[in-house]
Amino acid sequence: MKDLKPETFEVKSEITLSNLETTLYADQNEKELEKKLKKVRKKLGKLQDTLYAHDSYSVLICLQGMDTSGKDSLIREVFKDFNVRGVEVTSFKVPTELELSHDYLWRHYIALPQRGKFGVHNRTHYENVLVTRVHPEYILNENLPGVTSVQDIDDQFWDARFEQIKNFEKHLAQNGTIIYKFFLHLSKEEQKNRLLRRLDKQEKNWKFSAGDLKERKLWDEYQDYYQDAINRTSTEKAPWYIIPADNKPAARLAVATILLETLKMYSDIQEPELDEKTKENISEYKAQLENE
Amino acid sequence: MKDLKPETFEVKSEITLSNLETTLYADQNEKELEKKLKKVRKKLGKLQDTLYAHDSYSVLICLQGMDTSGKDSLIREVFKDFNVRGVEVTSFKVPTELELSHDYLWRHYIALPQRGKFGVHNRTHYENVLVTRVHPEYILNENLPGVTSVQDIDDQFWDARFEQIKNFEKHLAQNGTIIYKFFLHLSKEEQKNRLLRRLDKQEKNWKFSAGDLKERKLWDEYQDYYQDAINRTSTEKAPWYIIPADNKPAARLAVATILLETLKMYSDIQEPELDEKTKENISEYKAQLENE
Repeated sequence: MKDLKPETFEVKSEITLSNLETTLYADQNEKELEKKLKKVRKKLGKLQDTLYAHDSYSVLICLQGMDTSGKDSLIREVFKDFNVRGVEVTSFKVPTELELSHDYLWRHYIALPQRGKFGVHNRTHYENVLVTRVHPEYILNENLPGVTSVQDIDDQFWDARFEQIKNFEKHLAQNGTIIYKFFLHLSKEEQKNRLLRRLDKQEKNWKFSAGDLKERKLWDEYQDYYQDAINRTSTEKAPWYIIPADNKPAARLAVATILLETLKMYSDIQEPELDEKTKENISEYKAQLENE
Repeated sequence: MKDLKPETFEVKSEITLSNLETTLYADQNEKELEKKLKKVRKKLGKLQDTLYAHDSYSVLICLQGMDTSGKDSLIREVFKDFNVRGVEVTSFKVPTELELSHDYLWRHYIALPQRGKFGVHNRTHYENVLVTRVHPEYILNENLPGVTSVQDIDDQFWDARFEQIKNFEKHLAQNGTIIYKFFLHLSKEEQKNRLLRRLDKQEKNWKFSAGDLKERKLWDEYQDYYQDAINRTSTEKAPWYIIPADNKPAARLAVATILLETLKMYSDIQEPELDEKTKENISEYKAQLENE
């Protein structure tokens, strides 16, 4: 089995989604992949502890992908050896009235991880250039000045939005947030299988929603907009990684490996030292305790 | 080894802290306790998944205890098999300017878990009747009307505050929050050992702060105020549990067991069923997918 390398998945130049594989390690034994994942996530858990103690960087993990692409179970499996203290998962759904009464980045901003912590965003600020691009009428709910009909939502509108998103991420990166953007790249065929399985397994069919089929009909549009969003916003400090998602254990292993290998490069992430003043007085503190 | 029972630890009538044991299973093998914990927390993780899917109750876990009583490591160990998606840990430290510009419950209120989730509060709203009772001058930072000197912070002030806290918890319980309050009951001697270990182990001594020794000198006052707070606020729907904390593996096992055994009693926590309308159309949905 070939070693995974972050570069293999990172988007560094223009991509065409339909040319990219949706399967990875299809020939590999599932148990073998899980065993590898266990090793990687254990190391990742250790690194998380150090990042927490270091208390300077934060890590933002953005997860995007079509329905059933495996975002939820990936979160469950990849972060299994994390100390729950240092990771916060936020799932973004249809925006609430309160959220709509702010600019579209507001709800994402207030969910950002504190220094020392990991924030996992299950669906992200990218929905603002994905679902709203497929359904531009949703933008009207934002009550933006000068945007009163879908005719106002033109190319310039989207150009501006992409610019805003890039500036948002640049700002975060410059202020200590390490950003990852993962697109779980699923085939249309495998989505069909997964939806059918949801319908077949009675104990899991509450997860099915008729809306899933409606969105599936718009598959090609979504793919086009994903491709455009990824091509426009993959930057050195906030890169997109395209993760073949038809094989769940492989997708999880890829994401965990990318996180581990790239975070290891931050050699300044270390446990802090005791401040000088306290250090000088250690023996005095010990004496105080011992002679109580 | 005797089975743990939640009732053993629950405060149902007035307690005197100094009469209560700080050790549990001192004679037990550490590995044995850890093995038991593994079993319990695995079941707890399953129950968490169901609570998340049920999406109606939330669980608030309040952790209090003196410095070095093991709150942080307990969180790490007890919630190890949780899906990170459904648990949020909040550590409350010295209140910030923004927090002080709101009433004292505000920062705790906004950190409460959503329906379906667990919220773990590392130190809690009880600090408002603990650290501030040892240091009443801290209350002045809250800028309360009519409270301009420590003389204004009299018995009536504390009576009112306890009443407010009880009403806050009652409100939460009546609206679907399951509340646990754990006091990690540590001996003064064991705290000394732990502080000395922190000072001795160079790689961990950054965790030491000179302030720890200052607060240790106020040990008896803290114990009195803990005892008073626990006696005044242990209710059926928001009970206190006193956990002997000198033996960390035992304390973790006790907390995990209490959570599991009491949550199991909520027999209505089940995965939801598919709504009727969707259920009726399942075969149609399947056909749609199959005949694409």
